Amino acid sequence: MNTATYTVEGMTCGHCVSSAKEEVGEVAGVGGVEVDLATGLLTVTSDAPLDPARVAAAVEAAGYRLAVGS
Amino acid sequence: MNTATYTVEGMTCGHCVSSAKEEVGEVAGVGGVEVDLATGLLTVTSDAPLDPARVAAAVEAAGYRLAVGS
Repeated sequence: MNTATYTVEGMTCGHCVSSAKEEVGEVAGVGGVEVDLATGLLTVTSDAPLDPARVAAAVEAAGYRLAVGS
Repeated sequence: MNTATYTVEGMTCGHCVSSAKEEVGEVAGVGGVEVDLATGLLTVTSDAPLDPARVAAAVEAAGYRLAVGS
């Protein structure tokens, strides 16, 4: 199991958390997604390592962005 | 046509606006609902005057609240 963490910017409420989780959860290979609103921490688990660009694209599709360097 | 305006507190994003609009739109007699995120202004149109308590209850069911005196 691989676990990667990112920081998401722009989420303001629980609806935002749900949207981000749903979009990242649809990335091929993702097994689990956790998002903490207060910190913006996005934790993604997968069987094989994921391309961070695909995670970033999913976060952007939900309407948010990854913090630079996260 | 009756138009009543209220101020909603606690909305932080477009998802919140959608939730509030949906819940208030389900109140019997409501014909139209507009919500402005920046100001919190909720505008409700209806054929007959509405009981403000029912609007307040719908706003609270969505997870927000009316400003005191609105």
